[in-house]
Amino acid sequence: MPQPVRISLDAMGGDHGPSVVVAGAALSHARHPDTTFVFHGDNAVIGPLLEAEPKLKAVSSVDHTDVAIAMDEKPSQALRHGRWKSSMWLTLDAVKKELCDVAVSAGNTGALMAMAKFNLRTMAGIDRPAIAALWPTLRGESVVLDMGATIGADAPQLVDMAVMGSAMARILFDMERPTVGLLNVGVEEMKGLEEIREAGRILRESQFPGMDYRGFVEGTDIGKGTVDVVVTEGFAGNIALKTAEGTAKQIGQYLRSAMSRTWRARLGYLLAKPAFDALREKVDPRRANGGIFLGLNGVVIKSHGGTDAEGFAAAVDLGYDMVRYGLLTKISETLSHHRRTSVIEVAS
Amino acid sequence: MPQPVRISLDAMGGDHGPSVVVAGAALSHARHPDTTFVFHGDNAVIGPLLEAEPKLKAVSSVDHTDVAIAMDEKPSQALRHGRWKSSMWLTLDAVKKELCDVAVSAGNTGALMAMAKFNLRTMAGIDRPAIAALWPTLRGESVVLDMGATIGADAPQLVDMAVMGSAMARILFDMERPTVGLLNVGVEEMKGLEEIREAGRILRESQFPGMDYRGFVEGTDIGKGTVDVVVTEGFAGNIALKTAEGTAKQIGQYLRSAMSRTWRARLGYLLAKPAFDALREKVDPRRANGGIFLGLNGVVIKSHGGTDAEGFAAAVDLGYDMVRYGLLTKISETLSHHRRTSVIEVAS
Repeated sequence: MPQPVRISLDAMGGDHGPSVVVAGAALSHARHPDTTFVFHGDNAVIGPLLEAEPKLKAVSSVDHTDVAIAMDEKPSQALRHGRWKSSMWLTLDAVKKELCDVAVSAGNTGALMAMAKFNLRTMAGIDRPAIAALWPTLRGESVVLDMGATIGADAPQLVDMAVMGSAMARILFDMERPTVGLLNVGVEEMKGLEEIREAGRILRESQFPGMDYRGFVEGTDIGKGTVDVVVTEGFAGNIALKTAEGTAKQIGQYLRSAMSRTWRARLGYLLAKPAFDALREKVDPRRANGGIFLGLNGVVIKSHGGTDAEGFAAAVDLGYDMVRYGLLTKISETLSHHRRTSVIEVAS
Repeated sequence: MPQPVRISLDAMGGDHGPSVVVAGAALSHARHPDTTFVFHGDNAVIGPLLEAEPKLKAVSSVDHTDVAIAMDEKPSQALRHGRWKSSMWLTLDAVKKELCDVAVSAGNTGALMAMAKFNLRTMAGIDRPAIAALWPTLRGESVVLDMGATIGADAPQLVDMAVMGSAMARILFDMERPTVGLLNVGVEEMKGLEEIREAGRILRESQFPGMDYRGFVEGTDIGKGTVDVVVTEGFAGNIALKTAEGTAKQIGQYLRSAMSRTWRARLGYLLAKPAFDALREKVDPRRANGGIFLGLNGVVIKSHGGTDAEGFAAAVDLGYDMVRYGLLTKISETLSHHRRTSVIEVAS
C-alpha cells in the first residue's frame, strides 16, 4: 500500500466552518481510506464533531488555534493579522513544513492566495501562480485557468499556465496528451493580443510532452468542451466564469417560472421531475467544486465558501488526486523539458 | 407626421442574402409605416422579391451593384476589393451622403466595422467606435459594450462607452437615467485594472446627465440585469458574450437530452411544451438580434449573419428606434456637457 496522502484542512474556512469541513473530510475518507487529516482551528468545536466520526477520528489530529480569517477580510489585512497563527496560515504551513501533502480551505480566495504565495512561494521556473477551475462541458469537464489570481499575463506566463493546466488535466482525465487552447476573440484580424499570438507561437514550436496544443478557442468553445485545457489571463478568465454562472442561474430561473405558469406545465414538470433533478445535478456547482492553485511549492485547493459537506468532499478528492498522481512532479518535468529545449535552441 | 426614417439595407449581407433582407424589411415596415428603404445589391434578385411585397415596394428603391462582401473575407481584403462599389460599402455610403438615416447589414462584422470607420469616421469627441449588444437578463434587457470592436481601452475610452451606451439605453428602455456599471473582477484588492478604477472615478465625479453610475459589476451581474448598461473593453466583452452563448447552448443540450431519456420525461415534456416554447422564445437569439456600432457619424446596425426574416426585422426595428429617438444627438449632448464641465474644472 502506498504512503497515505496527508491532508491539511482549514477547519474554520467557509460560510459553515468546522461542521462542513469535518463532514466533508469523512465523506472523502470513506472513498479514499489511504488518507490522514490534520484539522486546523478551534478544538472546542472540531473535537466533538470528530467524536461523531470515529473512522475519520482514527486518522486525524487537531492543531488548535483561536485565530480565523473572516470571509470578507482583505488579503493584506488577513496577512497582517493572520500570519503565523490563523487556521488558514497553519493549514498552508503544514504543507510548507512537509507535514502534509495538500492544503484545502473554503476560506476567502484572496487571503488564501496571498498567504499561499507568501508561505509556499512559487515553483522554480514559474513566475506566478494561477487559479484553475474545473468547468463542466458537453464533453465532460475542462480545466480553465487563470480564474483571477493575477490580472494580465505575458506570453511566457500564458505558456506556464498551459504547462500547469495540462499537467492537471493529465491527472484528472487520465490521459497522456490533453488538448490545450488559448482563449481569444473571434473577430478577424483582431485575433489576438500580441501576447496571445506569441504564446501560441511558443506552444506550437515547443512541442511540449504531455500536451496537444490546438490553437485559439473562443468563449463558445468552453461550454462545448472543444479542448481539455483553456488558457487565459485572470481578468478575462474571471469574467468568463462569472458570466457563465450568471447565465446558468438566469436560465434556471426562466425554467422555474415557465414550469409553474400553467397547470399543464406544472403537471409536465412533476412527470419530468427525475429528468429535471438529473439536469440540476449536471449543473450542480458542488460537483465541480474546488479551484486549484497552480504554480506553488505545494498543492492548495480552494473550495467554494458556501458549499456543503458533499461539495467540500469533492474539493478534498481533487486534492487527493493531485497528490496521488504527482501534479508537482508532472509540472516540473514538463518545465525542465522546455528549459532543456530552449537551451538547445539557443546553443544550436 | 414626422419625416420618414430612411433605411439603407445591405441586401447581399448574411448567410441568406436578399430573401431574408427583403422579407425582414417587409415585417419591420408593417410595424413602422413611416419608413422608406434603399436596397443595395443585385437587382436581378432583389427586384422579383420586392414584387411579392407590394407595400414594401411602394416605399423602396434598389441601388444595383454586382459586388458583394463574402462572410469570411478579412476586413483589409474586403476594404481593398469592396470599397466604393460593394453592397456593404454603398449601404454605409448612403448614410454618409445623408440619403439615408441608418445602415443595416447582416454581413461580416469585421468588414462592416472597417468600412464604417473608413467611410463614416468617428463622431467628434469620440476616440473610436464600439459594438453594443442587447443582452437578455432576468430584469429584461441590458446594453453591453464593447463586444469586440477594439481590444483594450483606457479610462477616457471606457467613459465614452458609458456615455454612448447610456444614450442607447435611454432610447431603448425609455428612461431618463439608465444605471451604468463597469465590468470588473471580484477578487478583493485586485479589483480593478488601473484604467477601470480611473474610469470609475471620472464617472463618479462627472455626474453626467442621463446616466446613473453605480460602480463596478461582475460577470454574474450581467444575466441578473443589475444595471441597464454594462461597460467593458472589447476583449473581455467578446469573451463574456461568447461564453454566455456557449453556456446557454450547453444547458439547452442538457435539457433536451434529459427530457428524452425516459417515457415519463417525454410525457412531461409534451405537457409542458408550451412552457418550453415560451422559454425558447425567451432565450431566442433572434429577439436580441442586432449589435449596434456606436461612436460613428451615423447609425449602423449589425444583424446576425445566420438570422431569418424575423431576426433581421428586429435589427431594422432597432435602427428605426435609434434614428427616431435621436441617438446621435443624445450622445453629442452628453459629450458636450462633459467637455464643458471639464473646461470649467480646468479653468477654475
